Amino acid sequence: MTLAATSPPPAQPLAALHALVGADMARVNALILERMQNEVVLIPQLAGHIVASGGKRLRPMLTLASARLCGYGGRRHIELAACVEFIHTATLLHDDVVDESILRRGTETANAVWGNQASVLVGDFLFSRSFQLMVDAGSLEVLGILANASATIAEGEVRQLATVSRPETEIADYLKVVEGKTAALFAAACRIGAVIADRPRAEAEALEAYGLNLGIAFQLVDDVLDYSARQADLGKTVGDDFAEGKVTLPVILAYGRGNEEEQAFWRRVLCEDGRQVEDFGKAVTLMRLHDSLSETLDRARSSAEDAKRALELFPDGPVRAVLADIADFCVERVY
Amino acid sequence: MTLAATSPPPAQPLAALHALVGADMARVNALILERMQNEVVLIPQLAGHIVASGGKRLRPMLTLASARLCGYGGRRHIELAACVEFIHTATLLHDDVVDESILRRGTETANAVWGNQASVLVGDFLFSRSFQLMVDAGSLEVLGILANASATIAEGEVRQLATVSRPETEIADYLKVVEGKTAALFAAACRIGAVIADRPRAEAEALEAYGLNLGIAFQLVDDVLDYSARQADLGKTVGDDFAEGKVTLPVILAYGRGNEEEQAFWRRVLCEDGRQVEDFGKAVTLMRLHDSLSETLDRARSSAEDAKRALELFPDGPVRAVLADIADFCVERVY
Repeated sequence: MTLAATSPPPAQPLAALHALVGADMARVNALILERMQNEVVLIPQLAGHIVASGGKRLRPMLTLASARLCGYGGRRHIELAACVEFIHTATLLHDDVVDESILRRGTETANAVWGNQASVLVGDFLFSRSFQLMVDAGSLEVLGILANASATIAEGEVRQLATVSRPETEIADYLKVVEGKTAALFAAACRIGAVIADRPRAEAEALEAYGLNLGIAFQLVDDVLDYSARQADLGKTVGDDFAEGKVTLPVILAYGRGNEEEQAFWRRVLCEDGRQVEDFGKAVTLMRLHDSLSETLDRARSSAEDAKRALELFPDGPVRAVLADIADFCVERVY
Repeated sequence: MTLAATSPPPAQPLAALHALVGADMARVNALILERMQNEVVLIPQLAGHIVASGGKRLRPMLTLASARLCGYGGRRHIELAACVEFIHTATLLHDDVVDESILRRGTETANAVWGNQASVLVGDFLFSRSFQLMVDAGSLEVLGILANASATIAEGEVRQLATVSRPETEIADYLKVVEGKTAALFAAACRIGAVIADRPRAEAEALEAYGLNLGIAFQLVDDVLDYSARQADLGKTVGDDFAEGKVTLPVILAYGRGNEEEQAFWRRVLCEDGRQVEDFGKAVTLMRLHDSLSETLDRARSSAEDAKRALELFPDGPVRAVLADIADFCVERVY
């Protein structure tokens, strides 16, 4: 693994999405900053650290773009996009505690700086804040969608705990983890756009299907990048999943296709005590040998195609085109 | 500290509250059991562990009794009482992680059995579940009350982090911690009863004031019990607060009244590395010397009186009488 001297090429579809919803996104960012203020200074400090750490803001932009696709002309998409980002941020804070991560997007994680206790509690605060904002936005239907998504996220994360160090995890079980921990919030973020615009159920479901498949593609590519990205591109620690004994699709595929000696290797390195730093290289070699990275990417590409297909319910136009390109971006991204 | 051979005397007011709302409470318990089910078995396992560990269920019973006091005749109080208990349970799970507790109500904590990761995530799940139930109950006003309470709880917990090992914490700052981490949920649990019964704002505010003051009394007595209870009565580890360097009102008072040598003692023992097991005895001695336990109890008694006074808006009757007795029980309890 070498540190790259240059940055990745600019991500055109992401820039196009930014251009499309940039004005709204500026209002979302202002609202996020406003609503994370608190007289208990540790809250804005810690929340600011993770909010400012340069995430792509993909989820809230999806809410804004979905609302735009549905011709929504009100103001509630701003509040709801902020809710989506707050839920995501709360999840990240708790994830980093659960994973004992020390780097996220190239900077120290909040738990590394302020400790697990503060990360758990500020995560709870942001999660509550999100529900307060939803109440302000005044739609019980949207509240239901995001409460369901939140429960599904937690469920997916717990499900993932049960797969740790178990390379014999079924692919179907792992895909349920992915749907929970990642795709559910993408799906909810997109569905909301149709719901606040009072569009027919079919459109809400199409946007939900778009988000769900986009989220699956996004996560599977994340899984691949953890073994194949250049450290400087990824902005988080390459090999994190491996170091945590996390069982992802590339691992499951390589394990399933491995011979006895290889399977013994996987069982050993996925246990905390059995792993050595140099095992990472062999893990990548085995993955390449069994095409498990390329097959995971193929599956991601197939989910991205499903996402694009779901958009076909909507008339062709610039918003739909940008959303379709985002599906491709999720597969082709290097970070 | 000696282990008591006998149980504490039966708590009459608690039994009376049980008798008053027992039928409804059975439905609440059934709903809690039903809604914590999940195909991810770790969720009901872990949630069941804490739900079954014999808490007093004071908060959901307060919602039921408040609804009764307001003449509510519908069914939503059942769902909302379950919500209140889910929020409380989620908070306990996260608290035990933050405090690194190993015993709660006499049994091992969930984090001691299943680890911090599962406790954080199942806490998140129960919290989300609670919001799903609120959406089912269909009141945006109630959602607002409980979202606000949840944010205030998290805020209080973060505020408390900043007081750890700092015996020079102002009394007013500590009382804000108490209002946040404990009293806010009591207040919300009670207020809900008036809101679902569509009672005038004054009644909702009276019930909120009752709950808030009850919660303050409850927490201050908890603080005292941590230094004075008999282990067998308390059902959690006596001396937990001390062992965690937690700054509570008895500590603040004893520190403020201590001479230089005593203040140096407090600063030493509230730091993780400075504390020895035998320091606990001296801490209790200093508290008794400076009347800091009795003064904390006096403050609790005064809050309980405020709670009872708030009830005077309602006509005299058996429900009001039970709620008033509960305020006394919170001060006189030995566990």
